[in-house]
Amino acid sequence: MAFSLKHAILPALVTLVVSSNAMASTKAYRGKILDFLDDPSAKPVLEENYRYYEDGALVVTDGIVEWMGPYSELQNNISSNVRVINYGDKLIMPGFIDTHIHYPQTEMIGAYGEQLLQWLNTYTFPAERQFEDPAHASKWSEIFVDELLRNGTTSALVFGTVHPQSVDALFESANKYSMRMIAGKVMMDRNAPDYLLDTPETSYQESKQLIEKWHGKDRLLYAVTPRFAPTSSPEQLTAAGKLLAEYPSVYMHTHLSENKGEIEWVKFLFPENSGYLDVYDSFNLTGPRSIFAHSIHLSDDEWSVMSETQSTIAFCPTSNLFLGSGLFKLDTAKENNVRVGMGTDVGAGTSFSMFETLNEAYKIMQLQGSKFSALEGFYLATLGGAKSLSLDDKIGNFEVGKEADFIVIDAKATNIQKLRNENSKNYLEQLFVLMMLGDDRNIYATYVDGRRVYSRKHANFKQGLKNFVNR
Amino acid sequence: MAFSLKHAILPALVTLVVSSNAMASTKAYRGKILDFLDDPSAKPVLEENYRYYEDGALVVTDGIVEWMGPYSELQNNISSNVRVINYGDKLIMPGFIDTHIHYPQTEMIGAYGEQLLQWLNTYTFPAERQFEDPAHASKWSEIFVDELLRNGTTSALVFGTVHPQSVDALFESANKYSMRMIAGKVMMDRNAPDYLLDTPETSYQESKQLIEKWHGKDRLLYAVTPRFAPTSSPEQLTAAGKLLAEYPSVYMHTHLSENKGEIEWVKFLFPENSGYLDVYDSFNLTGPRSIFAHSIHLSDDEWSVMSETQSTIAFCPTSNLFLGSGLFKLDTAKENNVRVGMGTDVGAGTSFSMFETLNEAYKIMQLQGSKFSALEGFYLATLGGAKSLSLDDKIGNFEVGKEADFIVIDAKATNIQKLRNENSKNYLEQLFVLMMLGDDRNIYATYVDGRRVYSRKHANFKQGLKNFVNR
Repeated sequence: MAFSLKHAILPALVTLVVSSNAMASTKAYRGKILDFLDDPSAKPVLEENYRYYEDGALVVTDGIVEWMGPYSELQNNISSNVRVINYGDKLIMPGFIDTHIHYPQTEMIGAYGEQLLQWLNTYTFPAERQFEDPAHASKWSEIFVDELLRNGTTSALVFGTVHPQSVDALFESANKYSMRMIAGKVMMDRNAPDYLLDTPETSYQESKQLIEKWHGKDRLLYAVTPRFAPTSSPEQLTAAGKLLAEYPSVYMHTHLSENKGEIEWVKFLFPENSGYLDVYDSFNLTGPRSIFAHSIHLSDDEWSVMSETQSTIAFCPTSNLFLGSGLFKLDTAKENNVRVGMGTDVGAGTSFSMFETLNEAYKIMQLQGSKFSALEGFYLATLGGAKSLSLDDKIGNFEVGKEADFIVIDAKATNIQKLRNENSKNYLEQLFVLMMLGDDRNIYATYVDGRRVYSRKHANFKQGLKNFVNR
Repeated sequence: MAFSLKHAILPALVTLVVSSNAMASTKAYRGKILDFLDDPSAKPVLEENYRYYEDGALVVTDGIVEWMGPYSELQNNISSNVRVINYGDKLIMPGFIDTHIHYPQTEMIGAYGEQLLQWLNTYTFPAERQFEDPAHASKWSEIFVDELLRNGTTSALVFGTVHPQSVDALFESANKYSMRMIAGKVMMDRNAPDYLLDTPETSYQESKQLIEKWHGKDRLLYAVTPRFAPTSSPEQLTAAGKLLAEYPSVYMHTHLSENKGEIEWVKFLFPENSGYLDVYDSFNLTGPRSIFAHSIHLSDDEWSVMSETQSTIAFCPTSNLFLGSGLFKLDTAKENNVRVGMGTDVGAGTSFSMFETLNEAYKIMQLQGSKFSALEGFYLATLGGAKSLSLDDKIGNFEVGKEADFIVIDAKATNIQKLRNENSKNYLEQLFVLMMLGDDRNIYATYVDGRRVYSRKHANFKQGLKNFVNR
């Protein structure tokens, strides 16, 4: 493994490719390449924040990025036994990272007519009940993982249900592909149907067992997952804080300030707190590994707490519109240096596709009179997501030594995309058109851990199962 | 031709099918069938406003609907020489009607970063300039019509450019398929680049010639088309009113109250008028055949004028979000008995697909705390659109004698659609899922004037050209 190489310097590359031992599997992927080094607005010179090559190459050995740069630099220095896979004018990008999604809601995506609280009662809770059955959980875990890969999403932060077996099923499905996946069992001990309630004690014990079993196993990570403040007693939130204190490397994943009715309810349930976020903060559930989905209606004080505690936000455009929750203030997050990732939030979100998610992010920003460029969108869907999950040392771009999760994008998957792409004046316009017109059809191939796990051409075959397929 | 049959009464059917003359072409299409008799909220008993058959049949002779009803009623009474095309569990619906779209903007769909007025200057006007060239206009007319048919849209109200040849090209392309299409040349004599300006006199003369040439030819109809108040002088608006007076059966098609900056500009340009709609009203441009795209920010007085003049509105969800224009008040339109149709408004709209358009209509309603059912959506996309274009005596549903424009929908075109469809408790839930998850892939076949003009299976072949293909 070649973690030692820090930057794409050619002599090192030559050495490395030549010196690869006989058992290592090195491949080079050629095509257009885009990745990000930082937020597009971080450095004043736009181009210093990302790398784009019209004819680039990505070199991968045993699931690790060895090199990325212009193909012309690689061409004459590559060992003849390294296979070059030429994707032509297709675009290679880091895999998408979905920072908020509910796998048990896959089966109820697009459920009619309600805003948050009624939607939970009418559709969500009955759907989640079925995950008590391990066979049901296993079936929908497989479907869910397939759908992620079909959409080019290689990592996700995922809600299970209250049942520990739901998390077992998901991790088992994800681990067949060596996915870097974060998930957790829902903690919920009040204000939901009896059949979905745990207790402070059982939720603590079950979460602890899941952490011991899964957190750090291969590429899997655990998130302590109270559903949201209204469905957890103070005792349960205390238990959640205790888990985080005992296991400082696990995540905290919950919902915050999605809907105005919800906010009023939290104020009623926690009258001693100054607001919704203060509830979580008072139970020590904020912090750099805490991800709060939505966070639409934050007060100035709450933005300060988000910033001071280095907590992060999952922005879920299609869900926020589908449930009529409101318009997320991305600009305010930036002003407060709060990390943000993109979330599809299926099943309240209406698509697994990060393209469709970014399309509606753009619209939410336009409704607020703000801009949202394709670079910003694809940054948030890749490195931005990795940063918001504190995984940017492992995934999110093609820096040498990172884990090789990447996608191959066909920007001309439909007639209108092809016409519009060819009618664009430069690659920035092409990227924007891709963001606005794209869907699952644009994902030509998905690679996880250096293995091809999805191919549009062979969409009906399972690929890349790590026990059966070499890299 | 069988215009005489008024309702689906079985004896008449038998007589008719048996008596079809040898030259007539009668076919029966079997499948699930949905059409509307009125707005789903018109009659208190929901089911009296639409017809749905799990196993239905649509009988078409020479481009005209002869009968629609349960297949069981047809089965034993159909002449053996009538071909039955069995679409199985696919859904047959009237073709979609797009009540506002700009065909010259097809090539610039998804143009980045601006709200209305800047977007026009930066992207739209340069794109429209190219339609001075008839070859360019002809090329994009063909592409545009193909894209409509691929998306199941069988009729549309279309903006051309200021060039009369742009309208000639569009009508020629539409007429190859006998489409019922309404279009017009833009009238625009100020506040745009010189290269796109006409004058009151030339716009009058050119529109008049186009009306004489095209209005009522086959299924084509003409719309007098001032772009919007800011780009027409009072003299030009007077000329537009004169055309409407001289040709009472032509349409009037323009934009209204899309963007707040635009509204301020109109107030500045027309200080003597009480508001934006009053400008059009004072030049006699309101009326039952006047369609105003957007109409987002209307005052109470303006709603009254819309209602009193029986003017109609094109609701364009993806465009209104893409340009950040605002949230259309569909409920207010209903309260005022103002007819509304759906518009994609490509190229400010981000999709030709009526499914994707209805998806965002739902979201716009949710953001306002209102509901929007699948029945309401599909009503607006079919009969509602026909009513708003005063074409409901000809198209919009399957009443006997209407023109046979229809689509065959595969509600299970993707993996997730299939799973979700099969996980639905009834057809209403299936229709909602279709509305939320659907796109061009769901259109299995499109029929115009009784001919199949698009088939997903043979998407690369031109079909249904009326000069070459029998019904």
